[in-house]
Amino acid sequence: MNPRKVCLLAGGVGGAKMAEGLAAHDDVALTVIGNVADDESFHGLWVSPDIDTLTYSLAGRIDRAQGWGVADEGHRALETLKLLGAETWMSLGDRDFGLHIHRTMRRARGDRPSDIARDVARAFGVTPAILLPTDDVVQTRLRTTDGRWLSFQEYFVRERCAPEIREIAFSGMDMARPTPEALAAITAADLIVIAPSNPLVSIAPILGVPGITEALRAATAPKIAVSPFIDGRVVKGPADRMMASLGLRADALGVARRYRTLADRLVIDHADDALAAEIAAEGPAPHYSDILMKSQADKARLAREILDLAFTPAEAMA
Amino acid sequence: MNPRKVCLLAGGVGGAKMAEGLAAHDDVALTVIGNVADDESFHGLWVSPDIDTLTYSLAGRIDRAQGWGVADEGHRALETLKLLGAETWMSLGDRDFGLHIHRTMRRARGDRPSDIARDVARAFGVTPAILLPTDDVVQTRLRTTDGRWLSFQEYFVRERCAPEIREIAFSGMDMARPTPEALAAITAADLIVIAPSNPLVSIAPILGVPGITEALRAATAPKIAVSPFIDGRVVKGPADRMMASLGLRADALGVARRYRTLADRLVIDHADDALAAEIAAEGPAPHYSDILMKSQADKARLAREILDLAFTPAEAMA
Repeated sequence: MNPRKVCLLAGGVGGAKMAEGLAAHDDVALTVIGNVADDESFHGLWVSPDIDTLTYSLAGRIDRAQGWGVADEGHRALETLKLLGAETWMSLGDRDFGLHIHRTMRRARGDRPSDIARDVARAFGVTPAILLPTDDVVQTRLRTTDGRWLSFQEYFVRERCAPEIREIAFSGMDMARPTPEALAAITAADLIVIAPSNPLVSIAPILGVPGITEALRAATAPKIAVSPFIDGRVVKGPADRMMASLGLRADALGVARRYRTLADRLVIDHADDALAAEIAAEGPAPHYSDILMKSQADKARLAREILDLAFTPAEAMA
Repeated sequence: MNPRKVCLLAGGVGGAKMAEGLAAHDDVALTVIGNVADDESFHGLWVSPDIDTLTYSLAGRIDRAQGWGVADEGHRALETLKLLGAETWMSLGDRDFGLHIHRTMRRARGDRPSDIARDVARAFGVTPAILLPTDDVVQTRLRTTDGRWLSFQEYFVRERCAPEIREIAFSGMDMARPTPEALAAITAADLIVIAPSNPLVSIAPILGVPGITEALRAATAPKIAVSPFIDGRVVKGPADRMMASLGLRADALGVARRYRTLADRLVIDHADDALAAEIAAEGPAPHYSDILMKSQADKARLAREILDLAFTPAEAMA
């Protein structure tokens, strides 16, 4: 049997775990569409944290202890930059700097960001395709209660998610064009998975690229989303605080509402059984499971469950 | 007594040693005019090896074992770049990369290279002024016997000085403008010292900036050059091979001939006593000394001898 074409929409850490789970199966040909709206220029270098987390994770090079960045990392370059007066709240490591230097050089040369991401993934020995939703610059902007507009990294890293968020915008989104690779992957997919990533700042800026949501709606493949919430909390990141700040339900029900018209199924943790009635009423058809991915085995098991949900007749879509 | 204003023309390692020797004396206010013709872009970053060697040396941060680069250096960024397919014969360290990233960002912003070098030196706690002869891009080009034109780093690092050199050119030199700081330092100097650096590729591209040699000739301060040769060999670098390749005497006499019309005195090693008659006939007035600088004490002692040569009445210029 030919492998199933699985197209995963993924943010950073949670998305990378889901990607690793799917990549663990021989009957899957995985394509990941990542998020570029967390990208930002630091010290004149273009940093693409979510795409790099995918690359490092799928290459087995991720720092497992902290969940992001490269293993065996140093911070000597950053020490020099600090000595020279630079702001160094973004903890960029030396191995990581090598990638940012390379990316920046190629972008300056006029290479497509998609081509750079593809070549980097290949050089790292990554088998799944890592695609960008757009080659244009789209950047998340978060308006705080005190009226400041922050980039995602300013909010997430510099201010440690402390500010209350009133509004989220994606600069450049109106003019952004989808990459032909992302559109083709969605169209060709046998299964589309929305990773347990932040719906507001990881998945939304993928879906927001003009043409991407339309392609998803037109795609015939089943679409299965995985909740990033377990018992009202996220495993990592600020999705709970952000959703609450914006007056949304910060739990699996909030996610169910968000993906209602997009996903056919929503995979939810058993811990959220209490929300079953509301989710069944307001969201995509739920599937209950253990969704916490700690080990490689957890990731592969959850991925297999999603594959079975999509492709096993007994579990077929309604 | 006010400190004596000493203006040093210096290349990389040998120049930095002379700078350290002069900087060791409280009665010296040191200004160093460095060489930018070894500068080159690597991985999209602007690298300025001679200027950085001056900065690291005068900051006490130089790797004493190898004589260049920063102490306690790592090479993780370069490992990533290598993985990504980059040529990595230029062994750039992680701490060093931090400086190149900073410099490149400021140049891209339109900051003057001289201002960047000044600010970097200050941030590293360097007291002497490190000046650039020009803010324009001037680059050494070496034509080999097989007709190739190499940059200095390609010749020196990549090809380990193996090729025979037929011609040296400095691209951009015709259009280069001297910095006002360099001209002012030459004019204001109480003493001008030409460091024991490579005459062909370290000192020549400083002297070659239109206006610099004119300012030196017009300066009233005594001018003392130090031979980079000891007994027909250089302590470091390819000056001997290059001078021989070009049909020049590759020894103290060759240096004497070169600085004949520019320097008032030439400091030569006792090991070159045998050339005394020819040097006296063809070069600046010689002064014999021990010019090998191994320890900090050696550097300070040679510097003091040069200061005495310039400022002690008994040893005054003819």
